[in-house]
Amino acid sequence: MRTSIATVSLSGSLTEKLTAAARAGFDGVEIFENDLLASPLTPEEVRARCADLGLTIDLYQPMRDIEAVPADEFARNLRRARAKFAVMNRLGADTVLVCSSVSPLAVDDDALAAGQLARLADLAQDFGVRVAYEALAWGRHVSTYDHAWRIVETAGHPALGTCLDSFHILSRGSDPKAIGDIPGEKIFFLQLADAPLPAMDVLQWSRHHRRFPGQGGFDVAGLLRHVLRAGYDGPLSLEVFNDVFRQAEAGPTAVDARRSLLVLQEEVGLGALPPPVVPTGVAFAELVTPDAEPVTSLLGALGFARTARHRGKPVELWERGEARVLVNTGPATLPHARRGSGGATAADGTRLAAVGLESPDPAGAARRAEALLTPVLPRRRADGDAPLDAVSAPDGTELFLCATNRPQLPDWRADFTDLPGIAAARDGVRIDHLSLTQPWHHFDEAVLFHRAVLGLDAQESVDVADPYGLLRSRAVSTGDGAVRIPLTVGAAPGDDTAHARHIALGTPDVVAAARRFTEAGGRLLPIPANYYDDLAARYEFTDGELATYRELGILYDRDAHGVFRHCYTRTVGRVFFELVQRDGGYQGYGAANAPVRLAAQHTAR
Amino acid sequence: MRTSIATVSLSGSLTEKLTAAARAGFDGVEIFENDLLASPLTPEEVRARCADLGLTIDLYQPMRDIEAVPADEFARNLRRARAKFAVMNRLGADTVLVCSSVSPLAVDDDALAAGQLARLADLAQDFGVRVAYEALAWGRHVSTYDHAWRIVETAGHPALGTCLDSFHILSRGSDPKAIGDIPGEKIFFLQLADAPLPAMDVLQWSRHHRRFPGQGGFDVAGLLRHVLRAGYDGPLSLEVFNDVFRQAEAGPTAVDARRSLLVLQEEVGLGALPPPVVPTGVAFAELVTPDAEPVTSLLGALGFARTARHRGKPVELWERGEARVLVNTGPATLPHARRGSGGATAADGTRLAAVGLESPDPAGAARRAEALLTPVLPRRRADGDAPLDAVSAPDGTELFLCATNRPQLPDWRADFTDLPGIAAARDGVRIDHLSLTQPWHHFDEAVLFHRAVLGLDAQESVDVADPYGLLRSRAVSTGDGAVRIPLTVGAAPGDDTAHARHIALGTPDVVAAARRFTEAGGRLLPIPANYYDDLAARYEFTDGELATYRELGILYDRDAHGVFRHCYTRTVGRVFFELVQRDGGYQGYGAANAPVRLAAQHTAR
Repeated sequence: MRTSIATVSLSGSLTEKLTAAARAGFDGVEIFENDLLASPLTPEEVRARCADLGLTIDLYQPMRDIEAVPADEFARNLRRARAKFAVMNRLGADTVLVCSSVSPLAVDDDALAAGQLARLADLAQDFGVRVAYEALAWGRHVSTYDHAWRIVETAGHPALGTCLDSFHILSRGSDPKAIGDIPGEKIFFLQLADAPLPAMDVLQWSRHHRRFPGQGGFDVAGLLRHVLRAGYDGPLSLEVFNDVFRQAEAGPTAVDARRSLLVLQEEVGLGALPPPVVPTGVAFAELVTPDAEPVTSLLGALGFARTARHRGKPVELWERGEARVLVNTGPATLPHARRGSGGATAADGTRLAAVGLESPDPAGAARRAEALLTPVLPRRRADGDAPLDAVSAPDGTELFLCATNRPQLPDWRADFTDLPGIAAARDGVRIDHLSLTQPWHHFDEAVLFHRAVLGLDAQESVDVADPYGLLRSRAVSTGDGAVRIPLTVGAAPGDDTAHARHIALGTPDVVAAARRFTEAGGRLLPIPANYYDDLAARYEFTDGELATYRELGILYDRDAHGVFRHCYTRTVGRVFFELVQRDGGYQGYGAANAPVRLAAQHTAR
Repeated sequence: MRTSIATVSLSGSLTEKLTAAARAGFDGVEIFENDLLASPLTPEEVRARCADLGLTIDLYQPMRDIEAVPADEFARNLRRARAKFAVMNRLGADTVLVCSSVSPLAVDDDALAAGQLARLADLAQDFGVRVAYEALAWGRHVSTYDHAWRIVETAGHPALGTCLDSFHILSRGSDPKAIGDIPGEKIFFLQLADAPLPAMDVLQWSRHHRRFPGQGGFDVAGLLRHVLRAGYDGPLSLEVFNDVFRQAEAGPTAVDARRSLLVLQEEVGLGALPPPVVPTGVAFAELVTPDAEPVTSLLGALGFARTARHRGKPVELWERGEARVLVNTGPATLPHARRGSGGATAADGTRLAAVGLESPDPAGAARRAEALLTPVLPRRRADGDAPLDAVSAPDGTELFLCATNRPQLPDWRADFTDLPGIAAARDGVRIDHLSLTQPWHHFDEAVLFHRAVLGLDAQESVDVADPYGLLRSRAVSTGDGAVRIPLTVGAAPGDDTAHARHIALGTPDVVAAARRFTEAGGRLLPIPANYYDDLAARYEFTDGELATYRELGILYDRDAHGVFRHCYTRTVGRVFFELVQRDGGYQGYGAANAPVRLAAQHTAR
């Protein structure tokens, strides 16, 4: 029989995947849509590449959330499907995978599902495409292969068949025997995968995946309250079996552990810590670089002006609107940078090494940090400097607790001398968020630090596919969004050096900002045309809107609240910039676009 | 309240763990028994170290499988407990953790459990020790905290209380409310841990942990038979979402993928591969080294004689009994070593780079290997060499398929010239097993390779604690044990360089072999005294037996079949030797002793 492999099974760019599959002797591939969207190759070029390699494109996948939905939603789905079938014609792929819907809009109505799938198959037939309908194990109403087959049988359409996936069938414990009764010609496709059996019993969970209190999902504080009510007065002892801690340096793990107990004790009313002082904004981001030119020319193109210079050190202040960036060409001392991304060596080039946070009470914030075992940095770096409160985050990033332009409090600005005759534009630009890559296997610790020490709220954790791995991202922020810090970690040690940190600048008009940047000689990250073809299939835009995004490389996302538009500069050293426009209360960070952005960054290297 | 941390929560040696806990400000520690057994410090020295650091030893843990067992078993348990209480007195620890039994011998009888725990508490009281009884979430009959407390209450002994562990309580979804009703003074200890919530739903399982067929636990072949019966004739397509494959080089993953499909097709009767040729023994192990002296002096002390020399290359044959080791000081060509442990660079020093396997049909074995996408190595390395079949394993190890002393077949021995007047001892020594460290994240691939290509059987996978991480080990072997290869992998990239490969030499008398080795100037790996104190508590030995093991550093294990005694040389480059004595059909590799051995190797560095 012919053999095929899904591109999602392999690492790298689409080109690398196709080459590897052909060299290993596969006859064909399934192309995963995200791999195409992230590729700079056009569908025609992908088709030609496959032909050169002797590969057929056996499946294009997947289409999701198509069937058993209200009529207006189904009309939108058909519109999207038409665009995808056109792409398949360009690819020369004749079978599309449709997964059973997980949409909350889907209703439990097999007749409706069959009817809509038949209409989809009608459309597919016009393009010479076959539709293979598959039950996802976690499908909303259709989750077993025999159920999916009954719907296909009901639909009775020649261009509609079923796709069987060994994972979805065997993971549910379904009996595969009834497969033998499906007419072979109606099984349009077979996907094979194995998996370790019930991967996580309570013993494995206990022995490998425990966390310190506050770093998992248990209500440890609730339990402790009951124990205290019983009158227990012995020690609070941490017993944490964790594969990561087994490998990590013991010293920082022990500090992380004790911090978790201090937070727990505070939560149940044992022991008093100085109260949290929630920051109210970002005062500045500080870049340390051995060579200022590349980053200052980037800042210049971004509309920043050099407004001031440090009185005693080689540090310049660049400003635009409310956004302030310090460029430090002095020696990197970094007394507390011990584990990575903050950047341990100057050899890494430009890096985001310090952050100034506006604090209603800098001294109080530092007291809380110190009580929670955070290294406090010297208040004065040199004679005559303003006495600033600063602490070191677990990743070595220096956090300055600032009181910008507030009388009675030491002001970091006081260490700077204004450059005469230069004023920053007052145009509403601000630092929207700072994305801080974390060293591997200290992610839960970093989240607890930002929650407990800085008083930020943690959002849900998100997985993001990178062509060469998988990133985990979790944002911490203030309730009003004045401070937003997505923390990101790679899948394995070393990934912290593969991914740069970035500064996202919020602007009321990202198109104007992007144009101005390119007119000033800046180069935005190029985004593949396939991405915009997909956007066109997903959303309706006003005349010319999408063309503008396509021209500039602006990415687009929507959530329940509003719209997010964003684009990226090239990377300098270990840092890049993002321009973002947040409208209508959009809350996220464009995570849906991250795989395309990451692939583009790999390509641009 | 006082704070404490279990040594198992931190990485490193016991000394490193204690230092880290004290520096982070903990008041005390729980000492995990394995950490003590693996430490070269005596209990008195540990006590003094803790006192110097300002730490108390709040708990010694754990005792397992104590209660609700038949009388003779309980008598053995009391004997073991007496020894442990004596150790606790030496440590200055006054509370011991007893986990609810998971033993198949345990019966479901709370009264018996309470009675035996009371007798244990009687004995503990004599030593000034308190017993804290805890319900393991996976205890055989006692798995909830309220059940454990009822048994403690029934026993009614002042030296018996309960230990509460937030993991065991919350992982079972128990309501912690009833804790408030336990008298506080009967809660002897509280262990705290958090954990991520239901860690593995089917969506996570599907998106992150799929494997290629034959590398997981699903009956993929069974499913495929049903699909074929239906008449399906489309492609067999692999769709594998796996976090590791996302990071791994695409080329080798694609080959691994297609090999899995070839094996699957063979299993269901599609496509004919040359049949497997199971090896019948180990012909030789080949060490490549830039400097032969350290390893040949080690071989000399192990009783090996240099018996022959390669006719054209700087390779010597060393023999003892049936064990043969080639020492190659030539340039390391390693055309296929791409990913690690086989050793990619000569800079690593001495490494185990090739293995000769006795094969009933070397050419047939090579044909199967080639059909399964294994790189076949040139049959002749140089003019005049015997034409030998050889293939490259996924880790780059060269596997020679040998026909030693078999007429009509090319013999590797023919390339060697005997050194006159030297004969190897004929004393029953042979290669018992070869432990091959694998590159990170290619472990499942290696197991499938050895199973499918070489026709070996795979045993269960075993986790082994190393002071600085966790190793996974899975042995492949022939049914008769003539070839045994434990494959081992570390917990993270880079670990493959932290752990050496080794050659285990089977001998009928390990004590004599060890004595002879030390008398010849060899140095065995020193094993901590605490290990032998524990052995004395676990097993009864004949007079002087344990003293001999203690003197020489011989480790001891039993399984259902027999007894295993073993000891280790120091490491040379990336290789060390083990001397083993297998009696009564013992099947394992002494995995229970591996943590002690690994810690000793770290100490010896």
